[in-house]
Amino acid sequence: MARVSLEELNSAGEPAFVAALADIFERTPAIAQSAFGKRPFSTINALYGAMSDAVRTLSAEKKLDLIRAHPDLAGKAARAGDLTAHSKAEQAGFGLSRLSDRQFETFERLNGAYHNQFGFPFVICVRRHTQSSILSQFERRLRNQQTDEVETAIAEICRIAALRLDETVEAPDRLKVHGQLSTHVLDTFSGRPAAGVAVSLVELSGEGQEQPLARAVTNKAGRTDRALVADRPVPIGRYELRFDVAEYYSRIGAPLADPPFLDVVPIRFSVAEPEGHYHVPLLITPWSYSTYRGS
Amino acid sequence: MARVSLEELNSAGEPAFVAALADIFERTPAIAQSAFGKRPFSTINALYGAMSDAVRTLSAEKKLDLIRAHPDLAGKAARAGDLTAHSKAEQAGFGLSRLSDRQFETFERLNGAYHNQFGFPFVICVRRHTQSSILSQFERRLRNQQTDEVETAIAEICRIAALRLDETVEAPDRLKVHGQLSTHVLDTFSGRPAAGVAVSLVELSGEGQEQPLARAVTNKAGRTDRALVADRPVPIGRYELRFDVAEYYSRIGAPLADPPFLDVVPIRFSVAEPEGHYHVPLLITPWSYSTYRGS
Amino acid sequence: MARVSLEELNSAGEPAFVAALADIFERTPAIAQSAFGKRPFSTINALYGAMSDAVRTLSAEKKLDLIRAHPDLAGKAARAGDLTAHSKAEQAGFGLSRLSDRQFETFERLNGAYHNQFGFPFVICVRRHTQSSILSQFERRLRNQQTDEVETAIAEICRIAALRLDETVEAPDRLKVHGQLSTHVLDTFSGRPAAGVAVSLVELSGEGQEQPLARAVTNKAGRTDRALVADRPVPIGRYELRFDVAEYYSRIGAPLADPPFLDVVPIRFSVAEPEGHYHVPLLITPWSYSTYRGS
Amino acid sequence: MARVSLEELNSAGEPAFVAALADIFERTPAIAQSAFGKRPFSTINALYGAMSDAVRTLSAEKKLDLIRAHPDLAGKAARAGDLTAHSKAEQAGFGLSRLSDRQFETFERLNGAYHNQFGFPFVICVRRHTQSSILSQFERRLRNQQTDEVETAIAEICRIAALRLDETVEAPDRLKVHGQLSTHVLDTFSGRPAAGVAVSLVELSGEGQEQPLARAVTNKAGRTDRALVADRPVPIGRYELRFDVAEYYSRIGAPLADPPFLDVVPIRFSVAEPEGHYHVPLLITPWSYSTYRGS
Repeated sequence: MARVSLEELNSAGEPAFVAALADIFERTPAIAQSAFGKRPFSTINALYGAMSDAVRTLSAEKKLDLIRAHPDLAGKAARAGDLTAHSKAEQAGFGLSRLSDRQFETFERLNGAYHNQFGFPFVICVRRHTQSSILSQFERRLRNQQTDEVETAIAEICRIAALRLDETVEAPDRLKVHGQLSTHVLDTFSGRPAAGVAVSLVELSGEGQEQPLARAVTNKAGRTDRALVADRPVPIGRYELRFDVAEYYSRIGAPLADPPFLDVVPIRFSVAEPEGHYHVPLLITPWSYSTYRGS
Repeated sequence: MARVSLEELNSAGEPAFVAALADIFERTPAIAQSAFGKRPFSTINALYGAMSDAVRTLSAEKKLDLIRAHPDLAGKAARAGDLTAHSKAEQAGFGLSRLSDRQFETFERLNGAYHNQFGFPFVICVRRHTQSSILSQFERRLRNQQTDEVETAIAEICRIAALRLDETVEAPDRLKVHGQLSTHVLDTFSGRPAAGVAVSLVELSGEGQEQPLARAVTNKAGRTDRALVADRPVPIGRYELRFDVAEYYSRIGAPLADPPFLDVVPIRFSVAEPEGHYHVPLLITPWSYSTYRGS
Repeated sequence: MARVSLEELNSAGEPAFVAALADIFERTPAIAQSAFGKRPFSTINALYGAMSDAVRTLSAEKKLDLIRAHPDLAGKAARAGDLTAHSKAEQAGFGLSRLSDRQFETFERLNGAYHNQFGFPFVICVRRHTQSSILSQFERRLRNQQTDEVETAIAEICRIAALRLDETVEAPDRLKVHGQLSTHVLDTFSGRPAAGVAVSLVELSGEGQEQPLARAVTNKAGRTDRALVADRPVPIGRYELRFDVAEYYSRIGAPLADPPFLDVVPIRFSVAEPEGHYHVPLLITPWSYSTYRGS
Repeated sequence: MARVSLEELNSAGEPAFVAALADIFERTPAIAQSAFGKRPFSTINALYGAMSDAVRTLSAEKKLDLIRAHPDLAGKAARAGDLTAHSKAEQAGFGLSRLSDRQFETFERLNGAYHNQFGFPFVICVRRHTQSSILSQFERRLRNQQTDEVETAIAEICRIAALRLDETVEAPDRLKVHGQLSTHVLDTFSGRPAAGVAVSLVELSGEGQEQPLARAVTNKAGRTDRALVADRPVPIGRYELRFDVAEYYSRIGAPLADPPFLDVVPIRFSVAEPEGHYHVPLLITPWSYSTYRGS
């Protein structure tokens, strides 16, 4: 997955061009070949447009071939390590390769049911999802008609390709494939940003389990120095932000009850648009708070 | 613990008067005897005042006798059932009698340490506490000087007595021994109370455990028909209210993300004044909420 | 407008019954006569139902007679004092009789235009309106078709009658003809109701003028001892609540900027349902506030 | 008031250096002369430090001379146009030169009283103030002791000088002499920034008068393209932001009462720190709103 510039692609010969983009669409260099004829591309969006157009105009049979070029999600190939570099990174980043045996079996069962029903593997843009949302996607998509499901799978493949292209090609513009999750804490007791507040972000799974994702301490502006999630899609799923409010108010000498009315404040919310900007601030006093989806 | 009216007490002879109030202060009828001379009492507050004055003016030795008349908290006597009716009800209501062996051992150890240090049992008004707050009181009080700790124990005994008196005596007035915990849900998306919202209240213990306390559904006024806790002290401790917001907005047809940004909203707070009124409302839209200690 | 009990009405002979209710519908005793036959009435709602049914089933011509029995709003009859006791009280309470010459001329002009268009006087339930909303009703209703406008006028006449009946008849139940406007102030800086906050309510007219309606100081519960508007419809119109927040925070010793960030906080809102309960609270710190239509 | 770069100043001879900075301290080139010896200055803060040090170490007599070098505020010299270019711009920007005769007389009277008491003109950094705050400063400072008031006047002169220096000298760094006033509108009914909301900012004077300062319409981010006040101190005073909320909700098709509960929402607040950042956002639904001093 060495990076290449748009300029280099525009001046490359066909073999180099196709080699560089061969796996943007999994094991299907024909898509890159098809795009080669549309050079030069002034933007990465134009390049991606040419490639996804090529996919959308494939024959029904070729579409099935493209879908079938993908490995099972958390399947035996993943366990055996028999994946393209892209697929390997995607499945690993998501933690599918670290599934418990029981979870692995659930995925095996769902993969099997899906295969039986549609005759191709379940393809989903893993980086836009949590395990919980993948399981709920499995359930929903198993209820689809065959034709609709082919289009759904192709749409997911295009999302996967966009993320791969964004990682592979340097360009003056960006594909809109990343979201952001950020917070800030405003102390309306003191009328200023709350500095030094410990914040943590966890992902909530279905059965009361949780996965720590980020920890930070607010700076003088009441913000974290970096967004809690950035430069990647924010996976569809349930999250909880936790703000250590009692420690903050104790430190600045605010009069508190014993125990303090508010201690660690949890804000629980779900992400539905992985490419969205989720700003979830906290306005706080020792006796009240507000939160909202901000921007 | 048969109830008796203030009027009956005022017209009773000494033996009946003392018998009725003998265990208001644990196994110490002398306090009732002392109050008998102050009759008649126009209010239960006056009666309680006479009894607690009698306690406060006891000699140092008699104060120790009064403290020592109390059983250990969650001690062997409790396990063996060897308690006054009042003590039995108090310790049972709190759940101490259902402690795991390990928790029982912790209390045994703390009771022992306390006994060694002060020479009398650890007395606390159990109905004003959760297990967590009792454990933290144990720790704090073990750091007290002997003289201060005697006064602390006597103050707890007076609190216990006030609750017992309130249960025992019917009077035109009330002792201020009860608190309240209530909520209401206001839908600022629609500009009206949120009806039909499922609310639950749990107590949070130290180690991530939780104890369900109440469940309710909001009525047309956005309130629960009864307060979630009423007619008793609200035990010092940590709580979480949970509001099923997504179900409500889905039912009234509000446009929601998929999954909805807010689903079950948790409000976590602590109670410090068992006799206080804790009104903890929720102002909600599909994208924001506020809470505060109200009244 | 002497009050009479429902019981008395039920046992009265026809002349006394009709005399008591003759002007509930302006100068139209026939409505009372018609209701007489439906006695006895167990509730005032049943009595009102019988009378309004009688109105609704009047012939088209009789409906016009009923409308024409009403005086012009702020017309020459009002200036000359030639009104029924009910009409006089209604127009006076509203302040129409204290109009400036210029305002009087506006009403004269609108009355004239309306008369020309529909052939009967403009009837509106004055107690449900402010001058501004009456002027906007004039404009809207001048655009009505004749048939619709007859029904609109009859509906207004029924609202007038309901208020008159509520004042005239004592009964175990009440007609739902009154609304309420109330507030409370919660200090989320201190975590308790804000006591001693001066609150005023003004009506805002169209051209930047304002009419003081009520003044109060919050009590220990952060509420005003009485609702700011009660036992009457809340007139459709624009209002402003003003809360003297800086004085409060200065008094309780909160640290404030100089000048304080918030001084007098204005909350501007409109009433659309005169029979509604408008609870408009203020949640406040020295640096922030919230308000909402509560309940 | 031609601009000069720090570099040019560092390499200039004494006459040019002093000429460029002669009126930074009103008609007192000696301060510039004194700073000349401290060259070179790597930052404008260092240059300002050298000049203000020179002022602070002046003899008592020279301090009085410096104060007396200033014109009366809104005095006869201003009316006659007999001011330095700096003073002229400052007093004009503030609107003092457009005072009514009555206001002019108030200032004349206060100038006279102040002169009588202290023997020098009332000097204040006009750009940090509104008329109201200047009047209240006049009152406060008339109560000062002579020695304190000399120091107060010198401090004001240094503030005036800092603003003049900031305008005169180009440098890699900036003096912290500017504040900012900004807003944004978040629609928590829809869960997104409120775009297209008309916002206006007015200054409120003492007697119910108001001065329009800025108008803007929120962009897609719910913000105004430029801050409402920027690149200048935010004058100490009272302000009102007005948000046309009903127009916005009507436009996006939200269900509204008739008339809408909220129409134009006024947020009234005061500025106490002219160099501060005042961010005053509005969180809004058709039935509720919040505001706070943000950052």
